[in-house]
Amino acid sequence: MKPISKYFNEGLLMNVIADLCVIPIGVGVSVSKYVAECERVLEEAGLSYRLHAYGTNIEGDWDKVMTAVKECHERVHQMGAERISSSLKLGTRIDREQSMQDKIDSVQTKLDQR
Amino acid sequence: MKPISKYFNEGLLMNVIADLCVIPIGVGVSVSKYVAECERVLEEAGLSYRLHAYGTNIEGDWDKVMTAVKECHERVHQMGAERISSSLKLGTRIDREQSMQDKIDSVQTKLDQR
Amino acid sequence: MKPISKYFNEGLLMNVIADLCVIPIGVGVSVSKYVAECERVLEEAGLSYRLHAYGTNIEGDWDKVMTAVKECHERVHQMGAERISSSLKLGTRIDREQSMQDKIDSVQTKLDQR
Amino acid sequence: MKPISKYFNEGLLMNVIADLCVIPIGVGVSVSKYVAECERVLEEAGLSYRLHAYGTNIEGDWDKVMTAVKECHERVHQMGAERISSSLKLGTRIDREQSMQDKIDSVQTKLDQR
Repeated sequence: MKPISKYFNEGLLMNVIADLCVIPIGVGVSVSKYVAECERVLEEAGLSYRLHAYGTNIEGDWDKVMTAVKECHERVHQMGAERISSSLKLGTRIDREQSMQDKIDSVQTKLDQR
Repeated sequence: MKPISKYFNEGLLMNVIADLCVIPIGVGVSVSKYVAECERVLEEAGLSYRLHAYGTNIEGDWDKVMTAVKECHERVHQMGAERISSSLKLGTRIDREQSMQDKIDSVQTKLDQR
Repeated sequence: MKPISKYFNEGLLMNVIADLCVIPIGVGVSVSKYVAECERVLEEAGLSYRLHAYGTNIEGDWDKVMTAVKECHERVHQMGAERISSSLKLGTRIDREQSMQDKIDSVQTKLDQR
Repeated sequence: MKPISKYFNEGLLMNVIADLCVIPIGVGVSVSKYVAECERVLEEAGLSYRLHAYGTNIEGDWDKVMTAVKECHERVHQMGAERISSSLKLGTRIDREQSMQDKIDSVQTKLDQR
């Protein structure tokens, strides 16, 4: 298969910056222990991730990230949540490499310029 | 591996109702041809899907859905979009089976009752 | 105030196509009666809306849509949900008018061409 | 009007933790200057906010947050973006007060316990 670009090789490597927010439904209003379990999944997967107040930024190979997202659903169900609704943002680009920190720095630079 | 429930067999089968909205960035304001390509990906994948005004509902096995989502990113990049930001909702449940139409019918029934 | 374009008059009129998904947390796995109440809010607000399997498309003036979204949270809390997590997509454009149906038709036209 | 709870007074005060991701469409792949402008809007509005790699957490009174979100769309259109697609998460609760930092601390505590 022909790679689309050196930053995005079809079927080979595809880097993604994701944002995951897992909501267990039917287990009461306190959901932090389920979110904590998802952080453990990301840690065990060896992915770069950063928890924020409404989700978790994740960075890495598309397939690894997606395997971890599935594992989050499996674990949260195993913990007793009968229903889960997650939202996942997926950012890919083929023009250049960009890390989570690059995205933040890029905005910060614009803010500092004024 | 022990299945979590008959509706959610870990590592075997995991049904998901998803909602996908793919936004190609840097290709102008008209993005319908990219969305159309994603519909073709879903069709080719043999998944149940329904386009709405702000995304596409998709129903099927978790892995099949996720393979199709990745294929959407690959195709849209191949069409020339250097950057993509998608949002994906993922709904799973282990208490019972539920289709996309079941979800709509359930709300409609409540509306009709009053 | 100077209008930005005839389709987007700052402080005067701003049309939005939105997608709302309200998730009541802590009231069990069956949430359709809460979603039904949100549909009633949209109906009462006189907005155009269309329920799908993972949310509701809404079209109308930005302020009217946002007033309705707030009313949805108020009503769902009044029904007993102590916690709510919603996701809302907001699409605005200043180059031309576009309805929910226009967006769907635009994709369908591309699909039919091939 | 009867307040729903002391943490959620209908028509009076309603605190929200939000997450906003604004995507300008049709202005090329580099969107950080538009995101920076949104950060300025939040700063000027006197809201608590925190930029992350895929959006910005915002905390405050519902109406103030929503006014700022609208202002973000207006400013980004004024900067030349003809089309915008934003995603906004909205979390409200009536059982107790909770800040953005509380949410993060709550997960961190669970992680430290094991």
